[in-house]
Amino acid sequence: MTTRFYDQHRETLEKAIEATHTREYWSPYPEAPSGKVYGESAPAEGKAAFEAMLNSPFSLEMPGITGEVGGEVSPYGFELGIKYPQVDIDQLIPAMESSIASWRDAGPQVRAGVCLEILHRLNQRSFELAHAVMHTTGQGFAMAFQAGGTHAQDRGLEAVAYAYEAMTRTPAEASWVKPQGKHDPLRMDKRFHVIPRGIALNVGVSTFPTWNGYPGLFASLVTGNPVVVKPHPDTVLPFAITVKVAQEVLKEAGFDPWIVSLVVDEREKPVTKELALRPEIRIIDFTGSSEFGNWLEDNARQAEVYTEKAGVNCIVIDSTDDLKGMIRNLSFSLSLYSGQMCTTPQDIFIPRDGIETDQGHLGFDEVAKAIAEGVGKFLSDNDRACAVLGAVQSEVTAKRIDEAAGLGEVVLASEAREHPEFPGARVRTPVIVKLDGSEVAKYSREMFGPISFLIATDSTEDSIEKARGLGREKGAITWGIYSTSESVLDAMETAALDAGVALSCNLTGGVFVNQTAAFSDFHATGGNPSANACLCDSAFVANRFRVVESRRHAAA
Amino acid sequence: MTTRFYDQHRETLEKAIEATHTREYWSPYPEAPSGKVYGESAPAEGKAAFEAMLNSPFSLEMPGITGEVGGEVSPYGFELGIKYPQVDIDQLIPAMESSIASWRDAGPQVRAGVCLEILHRLNQRSFELAHAVMHTTGQGFAMAFQAGGTHAQDRGLEAVAYAYEAMTRTPAEASWVKPQGKHDPLRMDKRFHVIPRGIALNVGVSTFPTWNGYPGLFASLVTGNPVVVKPHPDTVLPFAITVKVAQEVLKEAGFDPWIVSLVVDEREKPVTKELALRPEIRIIDFTGSSEFGNWLEDNARQAEVYTEKAGVNCIVIDSTDDLKGMIRNLSFSLSLYSGQMCTTPQDIFIPRDGIETDQGHLGFDEVAKAIAEGVGKFLSDNDRACAVLGAVQSEVTAKRIDEAAGLGEVVLASEAREHPEFPGARVRTPVIVKLDGSEVAKYSREMFGPISFLIATDSTEDSIEKARGLGREKGAITWGIYSTSESVLDAMETAALDAGVALSCNLTGGVFVNQTAAFSDFHATGGNPSANACLCDSAFVANRFRVVESRRHAAA
Repeated sequence: MTTRFYDQHRETLEKAIEATHTREYWSPYPEAPSGKVYGESAPAEGKAAFEAMLNSPFSLEMPGITGEVGGEVSPYGFELGIKYPQVDIDQLIPAMESSIASWRDAGPQVRAGVCLEILHRLNQRSFELAHAVMHTTGQGFAMAFQAGGTHAQDRGLEAVAYAYEAMTRTPAEASWVKPQGKHDPLRMDKRFHVIPRGIALNVGVSTFPTWNGYPGLFASLVTGNPVVVKPHPDTVLPFAITVKVAQEVLKEAGFDPWIVSLVVDEREKPVTKELALRPEIRIIDFTGSSEFGNWLEDNARQAEVYTEKAGVNCIVIDSTDDLKGMIRNLSFSLSLYSGQMCTTPQDIFIPRDGIETDQGHLGFDEVAKAIAEGVGKFLSDNDRACAVLGAVQSEVTAKRIDEAAGLGEVVLASEAREHPEFPGARVRTPVIVKLDGSEVAKYSREMFGPISFLIATDSTEDSIEKARGLGREKGAITWGIYSTSESVLDAMETAALDAGVALSCNLTGGVFVNQTAAFSDFHATGGNPSANACLCDSAFVANRFRVVESRRHAAA
Repeated sequence: MTTRFYDQHRETLEKAIEATHTREYWSPYPEAPSGKVYGESAPAEGKAAFEAMLNSPFSLEMPGITGEVGGEVSPYGFELGIKYPQVDIDQLIPAMESSIASWRDAGPQVRAGVCLEILHRLNQRSFELAHAVMHTTGQGFAMAFQAGGTHAQDRGLEAVAYAYEAMTRTPAEASWVKPQGKHDPLRMDKRFHVIPRGIALNVGVSTFPTWNGYPGLFASLVTGNPVVVKPHPDTVLPFAITVKVAQEVLKEAGFDPWIVSLVVDEREKPVTKELALRPEIRIIDFTGSSEFGNWLEDNARQAEVYTEKAGVNCIVIDSTDDLKGMIRNLSFSLSLYSGQMCTTPQDIFIPRDGIETDQGHLGFDEVAKAIAEGVGKFLSDNDRACAVLGAVQSEVTAKRIDEAAGLGEVVLASEAREHPEFPGARVRTPVIVKLDGSEVAKYSREMFGPISFLIATDSTEDSIEKARGLGREKGAITWGIYSTSESVLDAMETAALDAGVALSCNLTGGVFVNQTAAFSDFHATGGNPSANACLCDSAFVANRFRVVESRRHAAA
């Protein structure tokens, strides 16, 4: 068990830990999808690597492989045709269980080294991963490269950094000398061992498999828990590549490759519940519906369960001194990946009497019109629109757009678009619907997808109260506010503390309410119903391992 | 909201944090119950303060006081006659809820200062607390002073140290500057706020109310959660004094005193379940039976639940080069507080073919005889015996001794003793019973109290396997082993990692398997069924608060 990988990546790990403390900007994985950064041949090689996987079997090293499974269809309109190993859980899980001791006994440094080498190799394959993420989730290529590739790698590294610091907070050895007055002191030698909880289950989400999945995967792995990944049947490939890379590194380092394994199931024959209830599974990470997240929390009681579920994200518009900047910023936020982000704003509260702006007073309908026109203008160039919107991951989401349009007066209608490169792509622009603050039932549940409501309220105070109530009862991952008044900003910040929701104030430039930066911004707070955990903090890592002490009298 | 208390105690806090990192010996609260340390008049004043509370009402500041309640009887044979405020939960809890914002907004420094001042004042009242602990739990005076007083204060401070470090791991503010190539960088100002979960419930145990209670109490309080203490109806006074001191300090610092409150109930009309299920209660700390601990975990799903429950502590005797030291050490461990510690050894595994010692080979029966004689000799001086044994807290425990004696051949019979000072005291010496390794049902459940089993096994390997199995299935807080063989010690340590149990090796001097030192030894691991948490580590504190971020563009 070599510390070679640890030695290679030690500096990166130390910088990552430091960045989580200062929360200044930092990333070791360049986000530009550019041959200038990754090598001139990297874009073409990545694309070729992706295409070579299509219509082929995908091999992984796991005990208990019994057949093959897989039926992914790109939201851009073609079948991937990749077949993954189908594995017998009753053979796989005991094999993973018997690999625990060697992985545990390797210790934090060796495990951190392996994790950082996995991340490094994933980074080198970012173009390949970008195509894999694009053609399973529907993200546009640039976003798939960043959110699915380098930013996911950042989040994985962040989790390793938090976990490594947490594991090494207790020294491996200590000498304890207690004075006894005139007598000889009591002297004890103590050892502290990090032990894992067991096997971790990582349940993948269809829209952001790697970004949402890597934190739990790497946090569990580095703390000594073998990880079985159960991807969404629509988005297997990004995780299959990840598991393959992890297995290669594990094997090179002398460990059983199946310490990271992949269980692929079919929509018609899901295995997540069976897996989640196995006694060997002691940690579960999940991103997805509140219904299933709550089921896991209520039923997988043998495991620590970390969930990110649904919420209702709110924007409060009170006033602005940069109307154009506000509209431009919101237009991008509502359009990006067709609103299929757990961070996309849904409920936009605006006083029915309107707002003050740098262009004078605007009535509610004028604000609504400005937003609708802003989004329309932003998406008027179809090539740019398709690059930003990407494709809609699931047909269910596409149908939900029509449902939303029936809820009230449509300010901006959703359009289907032709993708310039992929004729079969499922591309939809956002729908924006006007509602009254009294129509609570319509706007107080998550309508996942490119769907937003402009909601008329009695006042900004009323807007803030509505957001506070929704945050506490339904949860939210993001809030935004636009106001020129410090006291209004303060009131919103107090509401954010009451509801436990992260807040972005007056975003008018190149930072968006639905984006967070690893090492600096927290994703979710773990303090409201939308998520019981946060990416990434000490609470996310500290209970994935335990410490066992042994002590004896010091040698004379 | 002053930082006066923080400034006063800052050095203590910093040293405490450092000690948890080095895990070397440290304590700011002298453990000697001596007038030389605490002032010549302190012992008499403490006793007088205790006696002044007897047969009187005890006042606390809480909204909703409706009457009085209390019926404590000293295990040393007299009624305390103290009446505590009876409080209407429906008035108290909303009042505590509305105090959250001020306590939250005070911030980590002010809250840490308040907590350290509370601990400091409790330390000054250690003699008074010692009498209170002695006459509710039955602990001997010296132990009550230490385990109930200064060591409990250590554990409380340790929790504050971990929590303070965890809260301040994220800076209150950060500046984020992301380069944008030829363009101006993106600049964001970020604020990070610590928010509490809600109200914390601290459910007290009858035997170690302060030692087991302070970590949760102070961890919750310092992270911003008001704390309602629900003591065991037999052991209210130590917590009543604690809450009174906390209220005084809170009030002096400008906060609502009921941020720390006390709800006293009666055995016949318990209120713990009602309290635990209230939606405002978001954290619960509990020490006690597995039955009730499991009930809390299964039912109080709105709360983070930290439990210490029952386990079966094991000693494996393989061989020794210091038979006298081993017997002396075990005799003290089995006698201390009549075995009413969650850390007292219960199952002592010895090969049926006997062991090698510095006094030659001893058969199983000879080892059994040596242990029985050792305990008998240690307790032969009645004054010393009563000081070490203390009194049996509950009649149920006293009855369990007879039950245990019926399980097998009694090697040492339990005796009732006359206490030299308190004629009505319920004093019992340990019972030691011989069992065969095949009688699994008899030794695989916790028999709380002065009850131990000497269990004949096929070999040391068999002993270790039995301990490993018990640890995994029933849990354990402590393990000990005696062996002259490093490979046997290693095998036991591996079993300890597999089962997640802390291990003490070859204790023959002044350190005992049932004692742990704050800042250095962990109490429980959180990694086996006896406890889902550990005193004290990062996992114990990190999820008692959440962090809410707000961000805005940096001013130009």
